[in-house]
Amino acid sequence: MENELIRWFRRRLPTDRRLKVGLGDDAAVLDLADSPDCVLSVDLLSDGVDFVLAEAGPRRVGRKALAVNLSDLAAMAARPLAAVVALLLPRKSGSRIAREMYEGMLPLAEKYGVAMAGGDTNSWDGPLAVSITVLGAAGARGPLRRSGAVAGDLLAVTGPLGGSILGRHLDFEPRVAESLWLHNQVELHAGIDISDGLAIDLSRLCEESGCGAELRADRIPIHDDARRLAASQSGPAAADPLDHALGDGEDFELLLALPREAVEELRALDRGNMLHVIGRCTAEPGLRLIGADGHSKPLEPRGWQHRLDE
Amino acid sequence: MENELIRWFRRRLPTDRRLKVGLGDDAAVLDLADSPDCVLSVDLLSDGVDFVLAEAGPRRVGRKALAVNLSDLAAMAARPLAAVVALLLPRKSGSRIAREMYEGMLPLAEKYGVAMAGGDTNSWDGPLAVSITVLGAAGARGPLRRSGAVAGDLLAVTGPLGGSILGRHLDFEPRVAESLWLHNQVELHAGIDISDGLAIDLSRLCEESGCGAELRADRIPIHDDARRLAASQSGPAAADPLDHALGDGEDFELLLALPREAVEELRALDRGNMLHVIGRCTAEPGLRLIGADGHSKPLEPRGWQHRLDE
Repeated sequence: MENELIRWFRRRLPTDRRLKVGLGDDAAVLDLADSPDCVLSVDLLSDGVDFVLAEAGPRRVGRKALAVNLSDLAAMAARPLAAVVALLLPRKSGSRIAREMYEGMLPLAEKYGVAMAGGDTNSWDGPLAVSITVLGAAGARGPLRRSGAVAGDLLAVTGPLGGSILGRHLDFEPRVAESLWLHNQVELHAGIDISDGLAIDLSRLCEESGCGAELRADRIPIHDDARRLAASQSGPAAADPLDHALGDGEDFELLLALPREAVEELRALDRGNMLHVIGRCTAEPGLRLIGADGHSKPLEPRGWQHRLDE
Repeated sequence: MENELIRWFRRRLPTDRRLKVGLGDDAAVLDLADSPDCVLSVDLLSDGVDFVLAEAGPRRVGRKALAVNLSDLAAMAARPLAAVVALLLPRKSGSRIAREMYEGMLPLAEKYGVAMAGGDTNSWDGPLAVSITVLGAAGARGPLRRSGAVAGDLLAVTGPLGGSILGRHLDFEPRVAESLWLHNQVELHAGIDISDGLAIDLSRLCEESGCGAELRADRIPIHDDARRLAASQSGPAAADPLDHALGDGEDFELLLALPREAVEELRALDRGNMLHVIGRCTAEPGLRLIGADGHSKPLEPRGWQHRLDE
């Protein structure tokens, strides 16, 4: 890495008492004595797939790259501790892009107590890619798994869904605070963040838990973005707002499975509005959607997936 | 990620007793109760910069990507614990490339006790990039820093240098075992792995330690690859074998600063051959090279650096 950029990092990146060794060595050293259960996640984002650099700009891209990782920690109900950042920069304007990306990350890192523990900064003739690894600490109740849902649990989400492509996928708030509060306050059985789409992420939670689910169409909170997106489309391939809420992805709200009593407890605490109950877990495998008319039909686990050839 | 590749990961990746949560959740959970000081490093490699996929093949690329990270842990004298892998795959043959890369990583992971804790698998229309983050545990003497060298220390390397481009940069052995043994056995003051070139990496160690260094040209162990590379070149830009040993990079040997008594101790243990003493640290800043004729001249801190435009 060029020396000027290293000097900028040293000036700009805050120190952290848990960082025993920070920038300027072969690796960082982090004091994890208080966090024996280390929650570890990595997400890689690339130009043209997860963002369009020319439209979003480096600052929002940097913020998103850290936020999607924090969303993974939120899905595990883990408290964020530290992050390392690997950048693959286009050579042209690479130094400026790197600095602006960090300017996008740093407010989020400060807000959630993330020690920026170092990274690896590279350049090439290709487009931008960024890979961030985050470390977190599981709380007293242990990590929130995908696998703990049981038949009869209610299913709930932390916010309205759909149409994130209109901009929210860059600027969403990772549900770290909500997740830590909820997991501490009431009994949560399972959780996942909605990154690829409600339907496909629900199918993943159900698969790990060994159950099925039925959703009530009229209970799914639909984001205004989903309505705007649906209104802007026409023709046979156009989707309605509910379709967007079910399949768009990158909402980064949490999908939680929890016993009915936990929801009642939240209501008693006057915090019922933190969650939108959208359905329940069933003993029968598979996903079903109950329409406004009361009829139930199979729900396809659709959402976004990376396409790979053999 | 496609379901078939996920199933392959679940079948092929070994379990590890430290992994409380492995594949199939939003994040991994790692038991670090025995390792309160967590050593953390990330390295990103990309096609055309750190390897040529079409020449090296996915297996050797995967192995290198893990090995360069293990080399960072070796430079800190840290015991490897776990790794997470972020892949950015070309869409064409992406699934096969991913599996073969893992086949290259797994033997190395097994050899050095690395729990493969998960990752993120992506595809795009660009070339291959891979980013690996490793976690390690510092030993009883703490992490080996770059900053502990003092004037009078001897400088030593763990093996011959230069010409790694002929193939060794893909197949080198990270000096994990040597580093752990040495740091446990004798007093090491500072260490760095030679990734970008002996001269530039020495300058980094000296800068962090606040000292200078002088090397003896006739003591620098020159790899046969450096001689073969020099012999294959001609014209005014051709470098001699010593130039290759000083500036080529990707040797991934360790450069260590240690007191003279430590070297004598190793000799008394009949392990003097583990290290090649190549010079010493000086109070005066800057690097100097003493030629075979006894004359000393400044040594430019040359080596490989990522080029970035402003």
